[in-house]
Amino acid sequence: MPTVLDASLDLFRAHGMTTVFGNPGSTELPMLANFPADFRYVLGLQEAVVVGMADGFAQASGQTTLVNLHTAPGVGNAMGAIFNAQANHSPLLITAGQQARAQITLQANLTNRDATRMPHPLVKWSYEPPRAEDVPLALAHGAHLAGLPPRGPVFVSLPMDDWGVEVDEADARAAIERQVTARAGADPEAVRALAERLAAAANPVLVAGPDIDTSGAWDLGVALAERQRLPVWASPATGGHRLGFPENHPNFRGVLPPAIGPAGQTLEGHDLILVVGSSVFPYYPHIPGPLLPDGAKLVAITSDPDEAVRAPMGDAIVADAKLTLEALLAAVPESSRPVPEPNPGPQEIPPTDPLNPSTVHTALGEVLPEDGIVVLESPTSTLALRNQLRLSRPGSYYFAAGGGLGFGLAASVGVQLAEPDRPVVCVLGEGSAQYAITAFWSAVAYDVPVTFLVMRNEEYGILKWFAEAEGVDGAPGLDLPKLDVAAVAEGYGVKAHRASDRDGVRDALSTALASSKPELVEVPVAPGMALF
Amino acid sequence: MPTVLDASLDLFRAHGMTTVFGNPGSTELPMLANFPADFRYVLGLQEAVVVGMADGFAQASGQTTLVNLHTAPGVGNAMGAIFNAQANHSPLLITAGQQARAQITLQANLTNRDATRMPHPLVKWSYEPPRAEDVPLALAHGAHLAGLPPRGPVFVSLPMDDWGVEVDEADARAAIERQVTARAGADPEAVRALAERLAAAANPVLVAGPDIDTSGAWDLGVALAERQRLPVWASPATGGHRLGFPENHPNFRGVLPPAIGPAGQTLEGHDLILVVGSSVFPYYPHIPGPLLPDGAKLVAITSDPDEAVRAPMGDAIVADAKLTLEALLAAVPESSRPVPEPNPGPQEIPPTDPLNPSTVHTALGEVLPEDGIVVLESPTSTLALRNQLRLSRPGSYYFAAGGGLGFGLAASVGVQLAEPDRPVVCVLGEGSAQYAITAFWSAVAYDVPVTFLVMRNEEYGILKWFAEAEGVDGAPGLDLPKLDVAAVAEGYGVKAHRASDRDGVRDALSTALASSKPELVEVPVAPGMALF
Repeated sequence: MPTVLDASLDLFRAHGMTTVFGNPGSTELPMLANFPADFRYVLGLQEAVVVGMADGFAQASGQTTLVNLHTAPGVGNAMGAIFNAQANHSPLLITAGQQARAQITLQANLTNRDATRMPHPLVKWSYEPPRAEDVPLALAHGAHLAGLPPRGPVFVSLPMDDWGVEVDEADARAAIERQVTARAGADPEAVRALAERLAAAANPVLVAGPDIDTSGAWDLGVALAERQRLPVWASPATGGHRLGFPENHPNFRGVLPPAIGPAGQTLEGHDLILVVGSSVFPYYPHIPGPLLPDGAKLVAITSDPDEAVRAPMGDAIVADAKLTLEALLAAVPESSRPVPEPNPGPQEIPPTDPLNPSTVHTALGEVLPEDGIVVLESPTSTLALRNQLRLSRPGSYYFAAGGGLGFGLAASVGVQLAEPDRPVVCVLGEGSAQYAITAFWSAVAYDVPVTFLVMRNEEYGILKWFAEAEGVDGAPGLDLPKLDVAAVAEGYGVKAHRASDRDGVRDALSTALASSKPELVEVPVAPGMALF
Repeated sequence: MPTVLDASLDLFRAHGMTTVFGNPGSTELPMLANFPADFRYVLGLQEAVVVGMADGFAQASGQTTLVNLHTAPGVGNAMGAIFNAQANHSPLLITAGQQARAQITLQANLTNRDATRMPHPLVKWSYEPPRAEDVPLALAHGAHLAGLPPRGPVFVSLPMDDWGVEVDEADARAAIERQVTARAGADPEAVRALAERLAAAANPVLVAGPDIDTSGAWDLGVALAERQRLPVWASPATGGHRLGFPENHPNFRGVLPPAIGPAGQTLEGHDLILVVGSSVFPYYPHIPGPLLPDGAKLVAITSDPDEAVRAPMGDAIVADAKLTLEALLAAVPESSRPVPEPNPGPQEIPPTDPLNPSTVHTALGEVLPEDGIVVLESPTSTLALRNQLRLSRPGSYYFAAGGGLGFGLAASVGVQLAEPDRPVVCVLGEGSAQYAITAFWSAVAYDVPVTFLVMRNEEYGILKWFAEAEGVDGAPGLDLPKLDVAAVAEGYGVKAHRASDRDGVRDALSTALASSKPELVEVPVAPGMALF
């Protein structure tokens, strides 16, 4: 009879989950015994990094990804990254070891006392099987659920003495072989009604969200915009963990501002706002105003029921973005509305000394190959990067939708592992790099050739901008003197370049991009926000 | 009328909570506006470090300590460290910013959706005031509760638009001025009964736990052991976040093994086991056996009701360790039992190449001043350090009781801030240093002269030991090649020394101890466990 471990490994194989991101402890060792040759273990040195790497890998591969953490303290360290994975709709099967069953009730050291309750607010399901024999079915449950819409992390707590227990072979096989299909298009009646509203609108607009990319609806979004002659805004950058529309497309207008008043004003003149694959909206900060322009209506298509119900205005259709866009596209005519004014493309920003982040992004744009991927966590220059690079291929951009720092550096390693043939550039502030700094070691240990671009402004620039916006003076902790990321990265074995003018930045990025090892380019930049 | 901020600052002053450990985000800025000159802000670059520093500061100062984190992602990153603070009985008032009240229901970006639920399993109280006017009273509630036995972290979520709201001056004053006293000795009847049992026992033994130090009962524990001629074991190292007894005392026997079978065997021959200030017991790993020797009885004194009720054997008295020991000492006679054999002191361990960790600790013992403090997170050499150093002053030793890595490096910075006149040595493995590595930056930024001693063994040595004990072969992720902590620390601005022989280690530690800056000594050590 197979053991729990045998059956679980076969289950992971059946789901294609043979890459494991982990940081082991004693309670995890029995799960990792005789680790099979067809599996790959990626070690992170702190759990925020483990889950961040897995988040990037899961998003870029599209596959539910296995994570293994060390009982309560390991899950605890990972909670910020699990928050990000939830916001990113990233399908993770997160497991953690637990004390031996005989020692749980007396709460021996390393007992995860509230194993299922701790991660619960951040996961779709949190479970500890009541018997060893139930472990394979619980893992199957989790592996399926993580990948169903809305995708996201699930958690299973695994007592360390369960792995050697024998399970019924037929029961195990049944659990391993199950397939669950959940992609579902909208009710045709709802699509027909929406198509009529869209065709009848005088001046409709599309707001393209991250789930367009996730669901593989990239070309359909473009086709709909072109057929219906829709101007297109990207959903606000705050919640945009991926791009939903090519940002070099003539119909592209820009990134919707994230605050209520400005977003409403930006949409002035439109009578129908079609939102696809986004919440409505990831607002921040609080600038009051009308939610919509006078007389405008809004319809959102999202696979996430929570996104649908929490929106403060408009209607929503809960369904897969790709299937629904396909049906909508088939139901709308070629419009006779005027074609939107073509987007003028990036602004040329005059160089400064130290460089403005915009200029650094211009240099990056000059050397980033067509199929390049950007993982972005440089809060002062998010918009500058979007505006300068105009990324325009699916799967080219990853960002922490929930606003938790630490995603970028770690996720870039996972994205590169999932996309070994595409160049990955991770753009960081020297402050944001600190939340997952040990990911440098994993990049070196596994020869993951990410190019790290660090914008060094010696401050939490975004906070100084917010402080001004909120009328806050004299707040402490906003300066970051002597935070030398290049030196720290070198300490972890990453080759680092320092560049301070545009040509130097471009050359250093070229070198790093051509390398088969992780390399880093640190650039001193002017303080403050870079928007264009 | 005072604002919420005015009243809250006065409340913090009244509680002596003028040192704030934080990592700010936009939702925290209004709380930090016009930060007063009589407060000190200590910035950590990742939240595990923020809470770890606060944990060390709270324990070493004995004072409830204020922490400020950035809404959901900040609390998430801190959860592992909050787990440690709970296990360490560390009194922390943890606050986090929250979205503006107007944007919580629509779940705008950075809304902490389950603000009170996320940290709840790890804190004594988790709250979000329903109105701005309630913030000062909620903070008073939290500040008091964190410090009541059993001490531990509490959490208050604070919407960012509350700080400017005016509050009733008399109500605020009432909340600020309250004092709550909770130290309470055991029922005299229970003490009398225990005194009789102790005096009547043929061969009683004392197991001294961390709460002896926390409660200020150090001298009372020694007096009781001497008066009653008790041999004394330290409670198992796994749960011993502080020492309960001088380890150079003639009555000291050693550190109780942490597994059920061996602990029971170690206590063979005793008919009464008196445990003070410890859980019964922080067992790990699971080695079955009798919980107690045949015929032995156990009585535990603890201020923690949870420790009292979850124990699998023996009686318990829930009361303050100091007051109860005082009463017990007064109620027992000078015993006529034979004085225990004097402890022979540290074993001389033959030097090896690379050095055995025991030899490194011998060298440390030669240069550590009498009033030196050790913060320990080197899992392969915990027992070697205890055995070689025989620390014997109160407040000289801090360790993560729950087993979560990341405490050591961060906590040492907090301990040194609370104890500026005592030398602090932080002993780390190169693996454990990674869980809070950015604390090096805080040590440099605030001129905190901790001496970091890093034992570099290129592996997770404790896990290899566990794997052997558990019969696990072929587990991945147990080696740590090329993890150069000295280089990383230098990247953060810490002066680093490398030493590989005993004299070199001693000299480098001397230099670091004499410095007014943080300095680090990295020593390559032999793989495997060091027990003596």
